[in-house]
Amino acid sequence: MKGSLDFIYNQQKELSTLSGIGALIGWDQMTYMPRMGAQEKSEQSALLSRISHEKVVSDEFWSHIEKLNQESIYEQLSEKDKHVVKRLYTDVEKSRRIPSEFVVKISKATTIGYQAWEQAREKNDFKTFAPHLEKIIDLEKEYCNFFEISGPKYNTLLDDYEEGMTVDTLRKEFSFLKKEIVEILDKIKSTNTYENQKEFDKTIDAEEQKKLCKIVHEKMRLPSEKTRLDESTHPFTISMGNDDVRITTSFQRKGPFFSFFSTIHEAGHALYELGMPKGDYKDTVISDSPSLGLHESQSRFWENMIARSVPFWKNFYPEFKKTNSEAFKDVDFDTWYRVINLVKPSLIRVEADELTYCLHVILRFEIEADLMEDKIRVKDLPIIWNEKMDEMFGVTPSNDVDGVLQDMHWSGGNVGYFPTYAIGTIYSAQIYNQIAKENRNLESEIENGEFGNILNWLDKNIHQYGRLMMADDIIKKCCGEGLNSKIFVDYLKDKYYEIYQL
Amino acid sequence: MKGSLDFIYNQQKELSTLSGIGALIGWDQMTYMPRMGAQEKSEQSALLSRISHEKVVSDEFWSHIEKLNQESIYEQLSEKDKHVVKRLYTDVEKSRRIPSEFVVKISKATTIGYQAWEQAREKNDFKTFAPHLEKIIDLEKEYCNFFEISGPKYNTLLDDYEEGMTVDTLRKEFSFLKKEIVEILDKIKSTNTYENQKEFDKTIDAEEQKKLCKIVHEKMRLPSEKTRLDESTHPFTISMGNDDVRITTSFQRKGPFFSFFSTIHEAGHALYELGMPKGDYKDTVISDSPSLGLHESQSRFWENMIARSVPFWKNFYPEFKKTNSEAFKDVDFDTWYRVINLVKPSLIRVEADELTYCLHVILRFEIEADLMEDKIRVKDLPIIWNEKMDEMFGVTPSNDVDGVLQDMHWSGGNVGYFPTYAIGTIYSAQIYNQIAKENRNLESEIENGEFGNILNWLDKNIHQYGRLMMADDIIKKCCGEGLNSKIFVDYLKDKYYEIYQL
Repeated sequence: MKGSLDFIYNQQKELSTLSGIGALIGWDQMTYMPRMGAQEKSEQSALLSRISHEKVVSDEFWSHIEKLNQESIYEQLSEKDKHVVKRLYTDVEKSRRIPSEFVVKISKATTIGYQAWEQAREKNDFKTFAPHLEKIIDLEKEYCNFFEISGPKYNTLLDDYEEGMTVDTLRKEFSFLKKEIVEILDKIKSTNTYENQKEFDKTIDAEEQKKLCKIVHEKMRLPSEKTRLDESTHPFTISMGNDDVRITTSFQRKGPFFSFFSTIHEAGHALYELGMPKGDYKDTVISDSPSLGLHESQSRFWENMIARSVPFWKNFYPEFKKTNSEAFKDVDFDTWYRVINLVKPSLIRVEADELTYCLHVILRFEIEADLMEDKIRVKDLPIIWNEKMDEMFGVTPSNDVDGVLQDMHWSGGNVGYFPTYAIGTIYSAQIYNQIAKENRNLESEIENGEFGNILNWLDKNIHQYGRLMMADDIIKKCCGEGLNSKIFVDYLKDKYYEIYQL
Repeated sequence: MKGSLDFIYNQQKELSTLSGIGALIGWDQMTYMPRMGAQEKSEQSALLSRISHEKVVSDEFWSHIEKLNQESIYEQLSEKDKHVVKRLYTDVEKSRRIPSEFVVKISKATTIGYQAWEQAREKNDFKTFAPHLEKIIDLEKEYCNFFEISGPKYNTLLDDYEEGMTVDTLRKEFSFLKKEIVEILDKIKSTNTYENQKEFDKTIDAEEQKKLCKIVHEKMRLPSEKTRLDESTHPFTISMGNDDVRITTSFQRKGPFFSFFSTIHEAGHALYELGMPKGDYKDTVISDSPSLGLHESQSRFWENMIARSVPFWKNFYPEFKKTNSEAFKDVDFDTWYRVINLVKPSLIRVEADELTYCLHVILRFEIEADLMEDKIRVKDLPIIWNEKMDEMFGVTPSNDVDGVLQDMHWSGGNVGYFPTYAIGTIYSAQIYNQIAKENRNLESEIENGEFGNILNWLDKNIHQYGRLMMADDIIKKCCGEGLNSKIFVDYLKDKYYEIYQL
C-alpha cells in the first residue's frame, strides 16, 4: 500500500510539474515568442503532451491505482488518500479508454482543421472549412463511443468540460434563459433610452489603459510576487503552478475599456487558480477546478457582478477620471454607468454586452446538440446560424467571418465547450446573490474598494475545494441550490429595467 | 541499420526539443518569472533534466549507437551519418561513464554550495563557503576518475568545456600572455596619459540605452523574427532552437555603456547560434558549438575587435551623440575612443577592461590547476588570491566579496570553465587578423556600418561547422594555426601603445 501511494503521489507530482512547463510554453507562444519560433515551440508543446499522456495512461500507474481502489485496501486509506484515489481512478480510467491511434487521428484533424478555419476566415468562405468540420464532428461522435455515458452522445462531450452536466438540463435552463433574455431585449429596444443611446467615442492610450489595469489588478489583491500582467492578442489566464499564475490583456481592441474589463475577468480566473487546494492536496488531481463553468463563474463574477455595478464605479470612476481627465471631462457618473452597461445586439460573441452574451452561447449550444444528434448538417450551418441570429438578436451577419466562422473552438475539436460560458455566468449571479444575503455590508465594501471579504468568501466556499466535489455540488453547498437561471434573469431585469427606465 | 538510424535521429530530435524547453525555463527564470515561482520553476527544470538525461544514457539508445559504430556497418553509412554516429558515440559513451548516484551527489553538493556561496558573500566571509568548496573540489577529482583522459586530472575538466584542450598547452599560452600583458600594463601605468585619464561620468537613462542597444542589434543583422532583447540581472544568450535565440542585457549596471557592449557581446553569441548547421544536421549533436572557447570567440570578436575599434565608432559615435546630445556635448571623438578603451586594473573580472581581462582568467586558471593537483588548499585561497592580484595587477581586494568570492562558477562545480573566456578572446584576435588579411576593405566596411561580409565570413568559416570539427581545428583551418596568444598580444600592443602614446 505504501509503495503504491508513493508511486501515485510521485506520478501526480511529475504530471503537475510537466503541466506547469506546458503552461510556460503556451504563455510564451502567446506573448513573447519571436515569430519564426512558432514551429519549434509547437514541437516542444507536442513532445511534452506526449510525455505527459504516456505517464497518465501507463500500465504501471494504472496498476497502482487499481490496487488502491480495491475495497479492502481503499477502506484502510486516510480520508485524503481516498479522495485522491477516487478522483484519479475516474480520470485515468477515462483517459485509458481513448486509443492512442485515435489521439493521433484527432490531433492531426484539428491541426489541419485549425489551418483550414484560418484560411476560410481569410477567404470569408465557410465552404473551405466545412469538410474539415465534418471530419471533426465525425471524430467527436467516434470519441463518444469509447465511453458509457448515458443519454445522447453530446452528454459525453459536455462531461469533458462540465462533469455530470447533461443536454437535458441545459436544454431546460437555456430555453428558459433564451426566452427571458429575448423578452428583456425586445422591451429595451422599444425604449427611448435605447433609441438615443450613444457609445463612448473617446480613446484612452495604451499606457493609460495599462495603468488602470495595474490599479485594478492590485485592488483585487493579486499578489505581484505570484502573478504578471502581459499583453497578447487574446487575453488569457495560465497557471504554471500554485505560485505562478499569469494573466494577459490586449490594449489594441476596439473600445477603450476592453483591456480593463478583460483584466478583471482574467484576474477572477487567476484568483481561483491561486486559491486552489495546497498543503496535502498540492500537486494532486484534487488541486484543480472541477469544471470550466465553475472557473468561468469566478471571472464573470468579478467582471460583471462586481465591475459593472454601481458601487464599484462609485469607488473607481473618480480614479478613472483622474488618470484620464481629458477623455472623461464632460462625462458624469450616470452617463458613464450607462456606457459600460450599454445593451446592443452584436454579431460577435466576444464583443457582446452582459445581457445578450448568453444568447450567443445558447445559439452555439443548440447547433452543437443538433449536430451531434444528426438533426442538421455541417454544410447548412451558415443558413442555420443566420436564422438563429435573426430569431434571438434581430440582426444577421453579412458574411461568415462575422457569423459561423467567428470562433476557433470547433476547429480545435472543442465541441461542448461553449455552454460553460453561460453556466459560469449563471453561477456568478447565484454566487453574488448568496454573498449579498450573508453580508449586509457588501455594497458599501465594494463602494470602498474593499474586496477582502468577498475574496475570503470565494476562497472558503469555492476555491479551497478544488475537485473534492463536482461543480454543481459546490454551488449547491454554498448557494443552497445548483444551476438556476432564474436568479440571473432576476438580476438582469432589476439592473436593465432601471437603466432603460422600464 | 535503417531502424537504428531512425532511432538515433528521432532520439536526437527529442533531446534537442527538450533542450529548447529547458532553455525557455531558464530564460523565464532570469527575465519574467514572478518571484514566488522560483521553487516550482526549479522543480520543472530538474524534472526536464532528468527526463533528458535518462534518454541520453538509456541502454536502448546506446545499443543502436554501438551497432552503427561497428566497423562493418559504419563503413556503409553516408558521410553525414558517419559524422553523427561518431560524435554521438563519443558523447554518449562519456555520459554513460558517470554513475547516476554521482549525478545526484554532485547536484546536491552544488545546490547547497551555491547557497553557501551566496551566504558567504552576504557575510563577506570565505570560511562560510570553504567547506562546501572543498567538498566540490573533492567531487571534481572523483569525477575525473570516471574517465581515461591522459595527463593531470584537470585535463578531464577542461575537456568538458574545451574538448582536447590540456593544462600543458594552457600553461604555455597563459604564462606567455600573462608576462606580456603585465609588461604592457606596467608601461601604460608609467605614462602621463594614464596618470591623467578620467572615466566618463555622464549618465544615460535606461530608455536611451535601450534605443542604442536596439540599433546595434539591427545593425548586426540579428533578425527580429528570430530573436528578442530582454532585461535580466546578468546578461546572457539562450537558444530555444535554430529559429528562436534570445539575448538579454542589463540597464542597471554601473556605467552607461555596460548595456551597449553587453548587447553586442551577447549578439555575437546569438549570431553563432543562428548560424548553426541546419538542413541535414538540424536537431543532431552536430548542430552545436564544439567548445565554449569558440563560442566566446564570437562574442569577444564583436565586443572587442569590432565594437572597441576606431572604424566602428566613426560610424556609431555620431549616432550615439544624436540620441544623447546632452551627455556627449563636449566629448570629441578622441576622448570618447579613449573612454571606452580605458585601461584600469580592477578587482572584478566582469568589470575588467580589454587589456587586463585575461589576467583575471589566468589567475583563476592557475588556482584551479593547483587545486586539482593538490598543490594548494581551499582554505588558503583568500591569501593566494590576493598575492596573485598583487603580482598581476598591483592591486588587492580589501574583502573576499571583491576577491575570491566574486564568481559563482566554483559553487556550481564549473571548474575548468574560466579558461574558455581567455581562449575565446585569443581566438577572436586571430579571427579578426585573418579576416583583415582576406578583405582589404574590412575597415571601411566597419566604418560604414556594413557587417554583411564579416558575418558571411564567420558563418562560412566557423558557424556552419557546428561540431563537425573540434574548436582548435576550425581555427587552424580558417586562420592557418590553432590557439596563438601572440596575435592577440600584437593587437594589444598596437592598440594600447597608441592610445597611451608609448
